[in-house]
Amino acid sequence: MELSARAIEARLAHEPRAVLATLRADGSAALVPIVFARAEGVLWSPIDAKPKRSAALARLVNVARDARVALLLDGYAADWSRLWWLRVEGRARVAREALAAGEAALRAKYPQYPRVALHAGEPLLLRIEPTRISSWAASHAAVGAAEAEHAEE
Amino acid sequence: MELSARAIEARLAHEPRAVLATLRADGSAALVPIVFARAEGVLWSPIDAKPKRSAALARLVNVARDARVALLLDGYAADWSRLWWLRVEGRARVAREALAAGEAALRAKYPQYPRVALHAGEPLLLRIEPTRISSWAASHAAVGAAEAEHAEE
Repeated sequence: MELSARAIEARLAHEPRAVLATLRADGSAALVPIVFARAEGVLWSPIDAKPKRSAALARLVNVARDARVALLLDGYAADWSRLWWLRVEGRARVAREALAAGEAALRAKYPQYPRVALHAGEPLLLRIEPTRISSWAASHAAVGAAEAEHAEE
Repeated sequence: MELSARAIEARLAHEPRAVLATLRADGSAALVPIVFARAEGVLWSPIDAKPKRSAALARLVNVARDARVALLLDGYAADWSRLWWLRVEGRARVAREALAAGEAALRAKYPQYPRVALHAGEPLLLRIEPTRISSWAASHAAVGAAEAEHAEE
């Protein structure tokens, strides 16, 4: 079965992390976990001051060449009747202006941000416009779990 | 920093789920969470009896056309000094023979399998041969967390 509209709303608002796929020049998928927040109908993900593997982040290079991205949010539990996932496909670009709404949403969602800098370097956010959302849930109980405000840990 | 060899071993052995990326005909990335186990130097993922969105699974169609896959394992924590991720890139194929080692590894890792059927239909496993492993950890504490036998929830 699919997630309810309420569960999709709750997870996009409250799920703390997603796995982002961007596409490399050779066509392979580059995966990395991200934090994100929603504002103005799009998703915003920072290049924050958590230590990174490299300064010239692959995800930024990749979306500049091919805007197609996918995000996966999911809940794992040893009780497999509680599994669910939510997939967002969309188009991403590196935004360097009009960042205020995205920044405010990220700061509201993540209390870590007064201590970790929201921008590691120049102010920019990955701006992801969803074009398709699909979902799956193992049971009604899984849908209920996904409707909760906080992630099930 | 990167994960230690011990942490990589521990997560490949014990992490219960990963996000799998396969490539669609149009070149976009298809993301889905999977369970997996390691045996004979490769990773095995079942098409088990957890309810699926469709019988003709996109991941099987995709790897038959383009064997390139990526897996992301990661640990999220509100304490961002404990974040880590592990990325496995490889080549996948649908294996319909010589499944015994993979099946045994999956049954050993997941106690759910006596109740959930390991094969939803004909016996087959996704066989993923790793070609490149990369990793990231926010701190030494994150490396230590990833070295634990069980996933940190």
